[in-house]
Amino acid sequence: MTDKPLAPAVVAQAHERIAPFINQTPLFRSTLLNHWLGHEFVFKVEGFQKVGAFKVRGALNALLSLQEQGNLPDSVVAFSSGNHAQAAAYAARQVGVPATILLPADASRVKRQATAGYGAKVLVTGSRAEAEVKTTELQEQGAYLLHPYDNDWVLAGQGTAAYEALNAGLRPDAIFATCGGGGWLSGTYLATQLLAPGTPVYGAEPLQANDATQSYRSGDIIRFTNSPDTIADGARTLCVSPRTFQYLKRLAGFYEIEEQEIIYWTQWLTHLIKTPVEPTSAVAMAGACAWAKSQPEPRRVLVMLSGGNIAPQTYETIWAQDLLSVTPDRHIADEPI
Amino acid sequence: MTDKPLAPAVVAQAHERIAPFINQTPLFRSTLLNHWLGHEFVFKVEGFQKVGAFKVRGALNALLSLQEQGNLPDSVVAFSSGNHAQAAAYAARQVGVPATILLPADASRVKRQATAGYGAKVLVTGSRAEAEVKTTELQEQGAYLLHPYDNDWVLAGQGTAAYEALNAGLRPDAIFATCGGGGWLSGTYLATQLLAPGTPVYGAEPLQANDATQSYRSGDIIRFTNSPDTIADGARTLCVSPRTFQYLKRLAGFYEIEEQEIIYWTQWLTHLIKTPVEPTSAVAMAGACAWAKSQPEPRRVLVMLSGGNIAPQTYETIWAQDLLSVTPDRHIADEPI
Repeated sequence: MTDKPLAPAVVAQAHERIAPFINQTPLFRSTLLNHWLGHEFVFKVEGFQKVGAFKVRGALNALLSLQEQGNLPDSVVAFSSGNHAQAAAYAARQVGVPATILLPADASRVKRQATAGYGAKVLVTGSRAEAEVKTTELQEQGAYLLHPYDNDWVLAGQGTAAYEALNAGLRPDAIFATCGGGGWLSGTYLATQLLAPGTPVYGAEPLQANDATQSYRSGDIIRFTNSPDTIADGARTLCVSPRTFQYLKRLAGFYEIEEQEIIYWTQWLTHLIKTPVEPTSAVAMAGACAWAKSQPEPRRVLVMLSGGNIAPQTYETIWAQDLLSVTPDRHIADEPI
Repeated sequence: MTDKPLAPAVVAQAHERIAPFINQTPLFRSTLLNHWLGHEFVFKVEGFQKVGAFKVRGALNALLSLQEQGNLPDSVVAFSSGNHAQAAAYAARQVGVPATILLPADASRVKRQATAGYGAKVLVTGSRAEAEVKTTELQEQGAYLLHPYDNDWVLAGQGTAAYEALNAGLRPDAIFATCGGGGWLSGTYLATQLLAPGTPVYGAEPLQANDATQSYRSGDIIRFTNSPDTIADGARTLCVSPRTFQYLKRLAGFYEIEEQEIIYWTQWLTHLIKTPVEPTSAVAMAGACAWAKSQPEPRRVLVMLSGGNIAPQTYETIWAQDLLSVTPDRHIADEPI
């Protein structure tokens, strides 16, 4: 583990390591969407990944790396309100180590059940402070803290999704991914450096959770005090880490996305590619669409869709209005939604 | 065209005919669901079919058959508020014949756009009577009326979905499909007779739209006066036809499904198999689940999922409550939802 930038080859090594345990997820295109937008959008669909999100890639790479080194811990602890909880539980089971997952009190019942279903012990904690105390306690008893993004193995593992797309021969003009803690984007950047080094990689973030965009612009990590209010739950992180920021600084740019735009693309991508698209994933598509609009010629854009796990309450918010009545061709021509 | 029962081999011929124009759709399983229910449920996912539903199979088989016979009409007319509209438009374009699709005034804008997007002329009609007058007028001008189910080619084409599943070597203990006009079930029955003749095929229907179940029990076709009120829009047909009833009579049984149960499985299947499942498809799963519960030993059940096109208003109804909080293992143990 190091704070120095990783060599891009770590992503290929990670892919070889985790391949037996994950799904090689498909690349989807929508003929109708591409006709409407005049560009070729290619979607890497991590909703079809184990546990329904890319997160399992990084978690597996970390625990399998420890196993290779003969350093498998007695137990694993992770703290997450999102897909990382299920990913850590799934990965721990693969290496035969017990896991304790700390979930916040407001985590949905279906998430608790799924995490427990993967064999983990679930502890519901009242506050972030309480979770941190509990985590320290478990670490003192020998547990390995599996961080969702501030971990070299984790971010190398997240890069295996873009690696699969590029390794299959895809040559996009640009690549888009959503920024939470930055692990997904850091890995995607490394994979691109390895297999298609000239290709620009862009980040996208909810406008209401734009800490990474602000950090990118200012050159210093900006930290929010409170969890930002966005429907894209994967982007509610308070800040990126020095480890991920060293890659984020090298991206081609960041796009800030309004909430209504996130919901627009959540509805449309779910409708067109026939798989549930998390609002967090729709953020990347909105960024890709804004970029494509700026291009004088038809482009091929790889859009990394992070996952397909949506809480029932979020479904209700998404579908409380009908945004399918404005087709994407009219939407990019700025017809109001 | 005949009213006599078709030989099961017509389904194999239909598959050979339409194969170049359709997707061979996948078979999905959910490890978690099967663990919970103690049976193996296998889903044929027609949401991944062209136009997002099985309907394109029958429409293509009809128009390609006419083309083979040298009887391609000058134009095609179809009347539908559902997936058949897009299917007829798509199929007509494949054989290079103009199509006029009559849509009711309450059809969603996204459906009108999609149907027009496939190159069809869309006419919005105020009432069923008005649509019938317009259809007759177009037929007198030489248009071929592409009926959604009362057509031998159409029902043979619909059977190609079950044909693909069985032809891939799957040997289920039972097969479930939802009943609308009966074409989907008739074709499924024929495919089963051809490739796995001892296998029972069951129909499932919303309790509030149980005309086929009543017809099955009484031996005579029961016709509703008004379109039944169910969220499963594909099952809102008033009655089956003598053509489809001759197959429906031979099914192993019918299950009647309550609305809340339809919504329960719509939420859970969308959540577990990560593709939007129409309420009409969830009806079949609910029937399959009720059947499986009656079995003393673990069974393998093929559930035909008709499609994945869901109007925004329907999404809103589906997700207005959280049914994911009751897992299927507790649900089949009759925990209230």
